[in-house]
Amino acid sequence: MKEQLTEEKVFKDPIHHYIYVQDQTIWDLINTKEFQRLRRIRQLGASYLTFHGAEHSRFSHSLGVYEITRKIISQFERNGYPDWPAEERLVSLCAALLHDVGHGPFSHSLEEVFDTDHEEWTCKILLENTEINRVLRAVSDDFPNQVAAVIQKTYPKPIVVSLISSQMDADRMDYLLRDAYFTGVNYGTFDLERILRVLRPYKGQIVVKESGMHAVEHYLMSRYQMYWQIYFHPVTRSSEIILRQIFRRAQELYVGGYSFEWMPNSLKGLLHNTMTVHDYLKLDEALVQTVFTQWLDERDSLLRNLCDRFLNRRLYKYITIDNPDETLLNEISDCLSSIGMNPDYHMEIDFPFDLPYDVYRPDKKEGENKEKAPILLLHGKDEISEISAKSDIIRSITGLHQGRYHLYYPEEPLRESVHLLPDRIKKLFKLD
Amino acid sequence: MKEQLTEEKVFKDPIHHYIYVQDQTIWDLINTKEFQRLRRIRQLGASYLTFHGAEHSRFSHSLGVYEITRKIISQFERNGYPDWPAEERLVSLCAALLHDVGHGPFSHSLEEVFDTDHEEWTCKILLENTEINRVLRAVSDDFPNQVAAVIQKTYPKPIVVSLISSQMDADRMDYLLRDAYFTGVNYGTFDLERILRVLRPYKGQIVVKESGMHAVEHYLMSRYQMYWQIYFHPVTRSSEIILRQIFRRAQELYVGGYSFEWMPNSLKGLLHNTMTVHDYLKLDEALVQTVFTQWLDERDSLLRNLCDRFLNRRLYKYITIDNPDETLLNEISDCLSSIGMNPDYHMEIDFPFDLPYDVYRPDKKEGENKEKAPILLLHGKDEISEISAKSDIIRSITGLHQGRYHLYYPEEPLRESVHLLPDRIKKLFKLD
Amino acid sequence: MKEQLTEEKVFKDPIHHYIYVQDQTIWDLINTKEFQRLRRIRQLGASYLTFHGAEHSRFSHSLGVYEITRKIISQFERNGYPDWPAEERLVSLCAALLHDVGHGPFSHSLEEVFDTDHEEWTCKILLENTEINRVLRAVSDDFPNQVAAVIQKTYPKPIVVSLISSQMDADRMDYLLRDAYFTGVNYGTFDLERILRVLRPYKGQIVVKESGMHAVEHYLMSRYQMYWQIYFHPVTRSSEIILRQIFRRAQELYVGGYSFEWMPNSLKGLLHNTMTVHDYLKLDEALVQTVFTQWLDERDSLLRNLCDRFLNRRLYKYITIDNPDETLLNEISDCLSSIGMNPDYHMEIDFPFDLPYDVYRPDKKEGENKEKAPILLLHGKDEISEISAKSDIIRSITGLHQGRYHLYYPEEPLRESVHLLPDRIKKLFKLD
Amino acid sequence: MKEQLTEEKVFKDPIHHYIYVQDQTIWDLINTKEFQRLRRIRQLGASYLTFHGAEHSRFSHSLGVYEITRKIISQFERNGYPDWPAEERLVSLCAALLHDVGHGPFSHSLEEVFDTDHEEWTCKILLENTEINRVLRAVSDDFPNQVAAVIQKTYPKPIVVSLISSQMDADRMDYLLRDAYFTGVNYGTFDLERILRVLRPYKGQIVVKESGMHAVEHYLMSRYQMYWQIYFHPVTRSSEIILRQIFRRAQELYVGGYSFEWMPNSLKGLLHNTMTVHDYLKLDEALVQTVFTQWLDERDSLLRNLCDRFLNRRLYKYITIDNPDETLLNEISDCLSSIGMNPDYHMEIDFPFDLPYDVYRPDKKEGENKEKAPILLLHGKDEISEISAKSDIIRSITGLHQGRYHLYYPEEPLRESVHLLPDRIKKLFKLD
Repeated sequence: MKEQLTEEKVFKDPIHHYIYVQDQTIWDLINTKEFQRLRRIRQLGASYLTFHGAEHSRFSHSLGVYEITRKIISQFERNGYPDWPAEERLVSLCAALLHDVGHGPFSHSLEEVFDTDHEEWTCKILLENTEINRVLRAVSDDFPNQVAAVIQKTYPKPIVVSLISSQMDADRMDYLLRDAYFTGVNYGTFDLERILRVLRPYKGQIVVKESGMHAVEHYLMSRYQMYWQIYFHPVTRSSEIILRQIFRRAQELYVGGYSFEWMPNSLKGLLHNTMTVHDYLKLDEALVQTVFTQWLDERDSLLRNLCDRFLNRRLYKYITIDNPDETLLNEISDCLSSIGMNPDYHMEIDFPFDLPYDVYRPDKKEGENKEKAPILLLHGKDEISEISAKSDIIRSITGLHQGRYHLYYPEEPLRESVHLLPDRIKKLFKLD
Repeated sequence: MKEQLTEEKVFKDPIHHYIYVQDQTIWDLINTKEFQRLRRIRQLGASYLTFHGAEHSRFSHSLGVYEITRKIISQFERNGYPDWPAEERLVSLCAALLHDVGHGPFSHSLEEVFDTDHEEWTCKILLENTEINRVLRAVSDDFPNQVAAVIQKTYPKPIVVSLISSQMDADRMDYLLRDAYFTGVNYGTFDLERILRVLRPYKGQIVVKESGMHAVEHYLMSRYQMYWQIYFHPVTRSSEIILRQIFRRAQELYVGGYSFEWMPNSLKGLLHNTMTVHDYLKLDEALVQTVFTQWLDERDSLLRNLCDRFLNRRLYKYITIDNPDETLLNEISDCLSSIGMNPDYHMEIDFPFDLPYDVYRPDKKEGENKEKAPILLLHGKDEISEISAKSDIIRSITGLHQGRYHLYYPEEPLRESVHLLPDRIKKLFKLD
Repeated sequence: MKEQLTEEKVFKDPIHHYIYVQDQTIWDLINTKEFQRLRRIRQLGASYLTFHGAEHSRFSHSLGVYEITRKIISQFERNGYPDWPAEERLVSLCAALLHDVGHGPFSHSLEEVFDTDHEEWTCKILLENTEINRVLRAVSDDFPNQVAAVIQKTYPKPIVVSLISSQMDADRMDYLLRDAYFTGVNYGTFDLERILRVLRPYKGQIVVKESGMHAVEHYLMSRYQMYWQIYFHPVTRSSEIILRQIFRRAQELYVGGYSFEWMPNSLKGLLHNTMTVHDYLKLDEALVQTVFTQWLDERDSLLRNLCDRFLNRRLYKYITIDNPDETLLNEISDCLSSIGMNPDYHMEIDFPFDLPYDVYRPDKKEGENKEKAPILLLHGKDEISEISAKSDIIRSITGLHQGRYHLYYPEEPLRESVHLLPDRIKKLFKLD
Repeated sequence: MKEQLTEEKVFKDPIHHYIYVQDQTIWDLINTKEFQRLRRIRQLGASYLTFHGAEHSRFSHSLGVYEITRKIISQFERNGYPDWPAEERLVSLCAALLHDVGHGPFSHSLEEVFDTDHEEWTCKILLENTEINRVLRAVSDDFPNQVAAVIQKTYPKPIVVSLISSQMDADRMDYLLRDAYFTGVNYGTFDLERILRVLRPYKGQIVVKESGMHAVEHYLMSRYQMYWQIYFHPVTRSSEIILRQIFRRAQELYVGGYSFEWMPNSLKGLLHNTMTVHDYLKLDEALVQTVFTQWLDERDSLLRNLCDRFLNRRLYKYITIDNPDETLLNEISDCLSSIGMNPDYHMEIDFPFDLPYDVYRPDKKEGENKEKAPILLLHGKDEISEISAKSDIIRSITGLHQGRYHLYYPEEPLRESVHLLPDRIKKLFKLD
């Protein structure tokens, strides 16, 4: 059952104007409860505490990735490029739509604290007993596995994988444009229509016509700006630190036998690392915020304080530390302890570079990056080169590391006990 | 304590580019927990189920209303217009910022079911024991009352009231632009900078320079389009009907002694109409969505079904009925009963015109509208006229009623029993 | 020879992002000298003196009309609508591209003074010995005639005519969007993609799906705003009056035997109303501006003065006259004469409503309007209604006349002789 | 006479929304005939042949540079920064408005052929007998000299010079945004409001607050993209080559005694390098295009051919040459001669890097660049550093040269004689 809708359906979208749905399968997937759940998970996690417009959800991003993929394939089909395997259309579209369906609430923070991985959950949601699985199986018995394989990058045709997972895939193109739009900045804006026009299927991969080199440069520079100005914004990092500390404290308490006034079942599974797909799908950001609101009345004062900080945006401040050696950190830790603060929670070193950051580094050997196909230019009819070999600007930014160490901490207790602090610490924290 | 910040602070905003905060009082108000709570209440309620971009909160709208008010006043001050009472600046800005602080989750639906009114709550939040009250009292003992009076439209200087409550106030100007931006439509776009430029304080009211007449026409036409294409969209209306039914069913059960698996205290207050400010402030859309998610496992099948419909977007369909007389409605009701449906919940007549709708009706005698000052044009230096006396286009749309009756219903049970329905009903519901 | 280009060519366009050329014939037409000449003719004539951004040419508009037509047809083809005659594609595209090719410099002003008509010239350029004619004949001997028939609205298939000439044709859609963009206003913006999506070929005409009614309302309101705020702007009208007076004065002098220092041949033909296509194609706005610059040194002081006014933007002022009866006008005329002014040139009554203005008046009996097909709504599968029967807002603006009489005049001589003027005249001209 | 207008005047502008005029002097300058002449000179010369939207004039750009300067100064004044010399406001605004007033038609091409320099002409127009001079002298006798000194970068206060002439001045900021808007690309877009907010007057220069570093990076990357995608576009370069050849051929003929059918006086001055301000001000692009149109009928076939190429966009093609050594060029030249072509006109080597290009090279020792102040960051209150010392991305692009040699030539004669060409040449020109 792979059928066309009798009449194309559209969603109004601020980025792509309209999102066009032509297949019954896609329509049915959008209407599953697992996909609708993405409405309750924000695309940018806690960034809305920095950029108040960033309240958009993974639901809209997922539609956007689907739409970009649809446009790329439709261009390939319209031009009849022989290197595009036409039979891969539906599996590509489904993978694009569903690639983020396993994300949990405030995913990146959650995954750092608990032992979970959104990609694994995505596959479980595709393969276990869910509405999504039923819709996919209606195509063919093996279809759920095929879509999962694309998302896991094990699908036998790399050209399909690269549509949604490469250095310039539909995922990245959508989120840069979308996050720029909702935050209200213009750094992430690039000429999508132009990039779509210069993509070509070529011997099992997707390449860029030589004339599109400057457009790719522009896209990569947009990405670079978005990382430093949005994704790594210190206020956002501070929110994420608080989030992780809440999760960490709750787990610490839970494991230690503390009894919570209210603890929903779905959260229990998370806290002791046993969780079914059914539980996981109950986790969303509404639940997390509600739990935090309830915890404002818990007995544990640290937990109460952290929840207040997150919900009411009373975040940690930060100082920049050029060389955070152990001696210095120990000194700070001792000093905080001496005035009654808890260094386990009240100081946290952050170095944004540690996050998956790959403006473009074809030589990177480990981490997420290794799996992302590089961007290839097609010269004339048959010559291929990796883009940083041709573009001075891309070569020059390849391998840049620009991060600096930040130390995050609650300012109020420090300020209250300022008279007890040694001068060196006062100076470091700009309290002199 | 009315002091300037030593350095102006800014928020990045997609509509106004930047929102500028210059007063310590405004900064402190934004940082109260009651104001931060607005981040958990969407500006457009359930509209995100129709327009997936409409996930923006009342937090960002409130900042926007503040910013437009700040711009208007700053223009008045820069030009030194004698009719603007300069001492009213701070009270105006605070009222603009706080005018929506009493909104509850999915406010319009909630207020229709329960006996609550967001404006009353706003005043309680300003006047009772809250962080907002403390910040306002720091200005002067009577300041909370003054701000509340502006919001309640009883403030002795109508020019201050009209900034945030008139036919063309900062509230409407911000929400039209903001809702258009986030839904992704361009109907709500008008030239804000131009309108701000033609506003003038004049003898205790705000008027429009004659040369701005076409700009006002454009603003009113934008408003008209937004009402019919966004705010009254049938899919949104359907979601709101489901929402109200959930609230209604929960109350019915609660009052009838049904015991819920989980019922947070803040919700109990709502259900038996006794509620403190403290309880009310715990109500937000995260809580409501979480409660609905929990209710997916309740014993009452009607409640379960309604929650599933709302969370997973399985909405009621609708048919248009030109003349919904009692005979017809009774016939439909009997017919639904006969196939086991519950007409109390499974059919609902909706007539969008019933909602406060006032694209522009200066002559309206009752309802919300009566309090909204009409738009006045200033000719030359001293002649005033009501705008619809001058503009053919505004006069022509004044008093238009364009609504049609819709009957909303769940399609699945009807379709399942289609063979049991009389032809007339089948035809009405397009099941033939 | 109707062939596809081996590779689609594109033009970067601010309105449509890209303009796609797929046919050799279209490409060749764009490269003819007659089409390239449109680069030297502004889309909005003298409007750039009011809105300095309005310097765009008919070249870019013509490409835009082509592109919208291409998109409409491509939508019809993609959906396989049986009522679209597929064989009419190329003739439609050519007519869209070429419909304005006969425009002269500052066309509207020129046509009012001289006995010319741009549509006639368009047909001559298509049918006589030109590069365009050669390209069209390469398709078939009769092809030039077919394209001309579409432009003249005599083509046997009205559906083809209506693409470029109806109340909502590709011409109007492009110019509203384009003129709004270049002037920098947002009144003319409407949702083109949405309108294109709701158009349907239906029994020999193009209709709008019922669900598109509000989109059409928005388009018509945009049009209304553009007329009153851009096209009828009093400063633009003043520039056009000066332009016509220059042409009128030059003809008067020429016919009277005055010898000009420089008078290019192409202009001579215009002045004594004998002109070949070859001459006409030499006329462009560069020539007209150059001639005006030369005439700054002519002996005739009236001509000199008028040219200075136009080139250096020293325009006539205007007063609004509610009831311009003959007595009043005679009195003004006598008065101007008495202080040495020339009423033939120094006073001009203007009533914008006289210009082709048809926001939408299906009942209009004469003028351009009669030939423009009304906008039809398609309900369900087979019911058609004229849109103003369904839309209150369209009905309410149908037939609005909002014009007011303006009297334009040079202010300086009046001001210099103000002491000689009777009080009544002083007051009228606000010189008291 | 430095007086404020009683009511601020505005121009509608697509880039800055509105341009605000508050000073009588600025208003009077805009209304001089020398400033109005800029309407007849395009901002981007022949670029409209590549990007059809690029038809905007230096008039609108000059207003834009004025507006950005006004905004910067207004921010300085509003914040009361002590390092801004308030008395320099009017001279700064006048210099910003007038800095381009000496540009001739297709300036860059014209200046390469004739011995003229637009900056010198600007100063003459300010200092000699013109309307602009009269308006400036009304401020004070020395005022014209002061404004000219700012434009010539000899004004004693470098902070004033740097507003309109530095690596990030009002001139560049306006043209990047404006050229991007009119061509329709989004590469040139950066966050102007943000950059204006982080500028600070500091000890006689303008610096950028440290927190604005990423905004400056974004601005410089936009500039880089605009150079390579717009300003150096090969089709534009081809048009400029043709333009220069027309000028060169006309001069060659004129000096050789050839008698032209029509040769306006203002052009004669240009051709034998003797020209008064009066003559120069008659030169505009309308005149140049008109002369070219007339020359289509000249006896000299080379001149005719070149004019046809420019007017009707029949441009030279180009090939890329990696190493254009003399041997190769001689071989090509001989070969072209052998088939009757004229190598003096029919082959031209172009290397875009030769044009003023300075994404940012603080170390450059000669050319325009040396005079452009570098971009300085202000850390804390008192530490200054040159931006490329802090920004990896700026350092990495500093000194990039990305140009390649292109050889431009008319394709038709080469193609006609292809059978006479040696294989090596055929291959080079891709004629095999």
